[in-house]
Amino acid sequence: MTKTYTLVVSCPDRPGIVRGVSGAIFDAGGNILDSRQFDDRETGRFFQRVVFECPGAPAGLTEAMERLAGEFAMDWKLIPGERKTRVLILVSKFDHCLGYLLYKTRMGELPMDIVGIACNHPREALAVSDIGGIPFHHLPITKDTKPAQEARIKALVDETGAELVILARYMQILSDDLASFLSGRCINIHHSFLPSFKGAKPYHQAHARGVKMIGATAHYVTADLDEGPIIHQATEAVSHEDRPDDLVRKGREIESRVLGRAVGWHITHRVFLNGAKTIVFAN
Amino acid sequence: MTKTYTLVVSCPDRPGIVRGVSGAIFDAGGNILDSRQFDDRETGRFFQRVVFECPGAPAGLTEAMERLAGEFAMDWKLIPGERKTRVLILVSKFDHCLGYLLYKTRMGELPMDIVGIACNHPREALAVSDIGGIPFHHLPITKDTKPAQEARIKALVDETGAELVILARYMQILSDDLASFLSGRCINIHHSFLPSFKGAKPYHQAHARGVKMIGATAHYVTADLDEGPIIHQATEAVSHEDRPDDLVRKGREIESRVLGRAVGWHITHRVFLNGAKTIVFAN
Amino acid sequence: MTKTYTLVVSCPDRPGIVRGVSGAIFDAGGNILDSRQFDDRETGRFFQRVVFECPGAPAGLTEAMERLAGEFAMDWKLIPGERKTRVLILVSKFDHCLGYLLYKTRMGELPMDIVGIACNHPREALAVSDIGGIPFHHLPITKDTKPAQEARIKALVDETGAELVILARYMQILSDDLASFLSGRCINIHHSFLPSFKGAKPYHQAHARGVKMIGATAHYVTADLDEGPIIHQATEAVSHEDRPDDLVRKGREIESRVLGRAVGWHITHRVFLNGAKTIVFAN
Amino acid sequence: MTKTYTLVVSCPDRPGIVRGVSGAIFDAGGNILDSRQFDDRETGRFFQRVVFECPGAPAGLTEAMERLAGEFAMDWKLIPGERKTRVLILVSKFDHCLGYLLYKTRMGELPMDIVGIACNHPREALAVSDIGGIPFHHLPITKDTKPAQEARIKALVDETGAELVILARYMQILSDDLASFLSGRCINIHHSFLPSFKGAKPYHQAHARGVKMIGATAHYVTADLDEGPIIHQATEAVSHEDRPDDLVRKGREIESRVLGRAVGWHITHRVFLNGAKTIVFAN
Repeated sequence: MTKTYTLVVSCPDRPGIVRGVSGAIFDAGGNILDSRQFDDRETGRFFQRVVFECPGAPAGLTEAMERLAGEFAMDWKLIPGERKTRVLILVSKFDHCLGYLLYKTRMGELPMDIVGIACNHPREALAVSDIGGIPFHHLPITKDTKPAQEARIKALVDETGAELVILARYMQILSDDLASFLSGRCINIHHSFLPSFKGAKPYHQAHARGVKMIGATAHYVTADLDEGPIIHQATEAVSHEDRPDDLVRKGREIESRVLGRAVGWHITHRVFLNGAKTIVFAN
Repeated sequence: MTKTYTLVVSCPDRPGIVRGVSGAIFDAGGNILDSRQFDDRETGRFFQRVVFECPGAPAGLTEAMERLAGEFAMDWKLIPGERKTRVLILVSKFDHCLGYLLYKTRMGELPMDIVGIACNHPREALAVSDIGGIPFHHLPITKDTKPAQEARIKALVDETGAELVILARYMQILSDDLASFLSGRCINIHHSFLPSFKGAKPYHQAHARGVKMIGATAHYVTADLDEGPIIHQATEAVSHEDRPDDLVRKGREIESRVLGRAVGWHITHRVFLNGAKTIVFAN
Repeated sequence: MTKTYTLVVSCPDRPGIVRGVSGAIFDAGGNILDSRQFDDRETGRFFQRVVFECPGAPAGLTEAMERLAGEFAMDWKLIPGERKTRVLILVSKFDHCLGYLLYKTRMGELPMDIVGIACNHPREALAVSDIGGIPFHHLPITKDTKPAQEARIKALVDETGAELVILARYMQILSDDLASFLSGRCINIHHSFLPSFKGAKPYHQAHARGVKMIGATAHYVTADLDEGPIIHQATEAVSHEDRPDDLVRKGREIESRVLGRAVGWHITHRVFLNGAKTIVFAN
Repeated sequence: MTKTYTLVVSCPDRPGIVRGVSGAIFDAGGNILDSRQFDDRETGRFFQRVVFECPGAPAGLTEAMERLAGEFAMDWKLIPGERKTRVLILVSKFDHCLGYLLYKTRMGELPMDIVGIACNHPREALAVSDIGGIPFHHLPITKDTKPAQEARIKALVDETGAELVILARYMQILSDDLASFLSGRCINIHHSFLPSFKGAKPYHQAHARGVKMIGATAHYVTADLDEGPIIHQATEAVSHEDRPDDLVRKGREIESRVLGRAVGWHITHRVFLNGAKTIVFAN
């Protein structure tokens, strides 16, 4: 039976990579459906994402890729098409992004397996009513209990086998330790157009500055607040008529769809970390 | 013969302003064509822009407005419709914004009278060929000659009666003194989405940060670089594929139209300064 | 206690309207918070929306407006600020727009009172789980039962006192009779950028045409399918890579927010019918 | 000396194409800089654009591609990087698009060689002053002289060796004969968001329909007016305040940049015809 696979590759750029990879897929009986690549001339690093179909398992592909990986110093991964990413979502009081992700997942648009929702407020604080059977974890936090609470988050990640943690307007700042633990596998939505208005109350900062557009940014979390590699951003025009509440209202939309797009691209292996930046083979 | 007038008003907000202004216009024989207002609840200040037509001169309107101005502590101005703003444009090497403004003016889209173009490079450095009969002033500048060069700019403003100075990718930083001299009457186009990437080489800064959108900002110039009240901004999506040169290329478009819109609104009296921000009755 | 009111006015344009209306509000003790107007030079019709606050009831305003209405042949309405519009939502199988409206309402962003949800499919067909205590009406329809089903819709409107009917991806074509019955009080979301791709399967039509942008349009329903006055539209770029399913997926977003904005403006009295078009004092 | 080449390929899709093409480039000494491909599952046709560099000429690549072309029934073309497309521009009275293209070309942004400008009005009718040394051809047209005028256009194309004809707001409708003659090599800018508002005065049609967005569409010309494969489109929000003149004014911007983008993509071999649609490997 024909199955679909995604192969992601990155390595130092030099002639022969595409020939090698496409040859390996061809020899394994695969037919390439989609291939995107990028050659970063600044860093000399090559990135590729190939989707191919194969009647049955791709014979000998793993061995062929291991040989290529040796020859080209490749980082690579082969992911079967139907495999869903296991995701843990952290949220605080504003749950519009959570609700959006839940709906997109229920509809089958986001191929992920939400293994848990953790919130520093109790269940009743959320306006989103339907989390179905997804385990809910109330993880309250104070200045003093922060290390213990973060230890519980780590434990939750390990226990659930979560491969991605989404900070869906989770308003607590992760410690350097937790940020490191989650390095490369934690996406945050910041409610501004970074690098403008980092930190707290960005809509109020934006209002004070009198900008004529607001935005939202989805990025990988690093130890530095709101500094991590950006995955996706969107903006919308605003005017002098918009009070901070209006910016918050208009911003919810942008936050939800920016986070939704970024998460969708991550779980379909379209995003590559490239130093402080990302390569995104968007769809 | 029916003529059109624009009346701009601002004052502390309280009941009766609209009634007073519309009454004064009605009594003067005017018919309101367009009226936009904004009541800034934060600062308690009211702003209004009224366009009206009048067969002949608006009888007694000036006196009526002076009475209202006394009663309401109004700042106000009455501008006859056909009056063009006198504009001095400063430019450096990149003249795409200048070319855009010249074309828009020639077409009659920007109702301004360009009284001069000053450039810190000689005429031949500009790719824009057709400045027609507009006086061109070569004002070279070095660290040492800056005070003298700025004195020439001031003199040019005074001699030409320029009411607005446009920094159309004029890359020299104005001294505090010149910025003060031009306070409220100088619009700059900064090639980033402020407050991101102030200062030099914003496209290179943007590229390094790995943002997924670039933008341009037109703002009034103040003593603080790139801090002045924002008039207009626009953005465009970019990707990992865009090198700094691509950002520069895509950015030119945005800079030109953002500056063009901001200038157009300023010279049609649609922009009000409101502390560190602007009110813009856009069209 | 200070209360907020919205006053909407339209009439043939002539001098004195603004003076009259603002005078009436001032005399009644009101202070204008926001005023938007438009003078349609083509049709000679004037439209105004004023929001004002008043300590206590606006004394004598109704009488003053009735006098003005007589003098200026005005259509006018005075709406107390806290009054929510009663809304009936019709939906079919795709309930993303319904879910969006429910969430926005629950959050307090859309000030409406949803008096019922009617669907031509049973409750279980909807992916949106939480309609809370809102009455759900299963109104199946076939070619033969259409007149009876539409009669039930009319009855539902009358019984619930619904002032607005929202077709939130309700896929049945209203008969001329029902469209007339709902004239001026029924908003539909069409999943294309009208007037492109009217009728069935617009995303498939768009895909076949090879357009590079898709969109959605919220409009008032009239007897002519997808011809009614447009309230709001938005678009998004797509590419050759987007199959019809991708257009559907990307389109859901646009449909939801376009419908949400249009409904929001309607229930806050920001939309005026102007022949085949609308005036929208947007926020 | 290292040179850059662009290779474009299209053929029926089947396994082995990418391996074949990348192998041929590798064997010829080339290093792939950029590769974009698309597999149209609907039509079963494959499209690829590869940019590669080669120290010296790509040895044996032509022969290798001819073998592959035989095996895969490929249409293919190899273009040296520095080769500029020869372009003839047709214009009528509104020359904002022409001015834009001239400026972009002069700046080096559009790598084309403008071999002539033909206009149905005399030179003096154009507001754009600087066409430099580009040959200007006044080709007046009336209902009776149309066949002769079109014959002159054809002759001009042949004499100049023009590979692309740009209709830059050229307002004459091409006959079926001329459209056929120019098939695949003529780009038109239509001042609406197709398929809305085909034909004459689209801004006036848009105004009458009361749309809330306007747009422009760049497309290949076919015998059917405004029906040809779309290359690029963009839109902008408008409101009830915009009169037809305002739509025209705002539309000029969109027309210029949409045409500029489409032409840029065509002359850098990023556009493939795919039946009634296009594949665009945009940058």
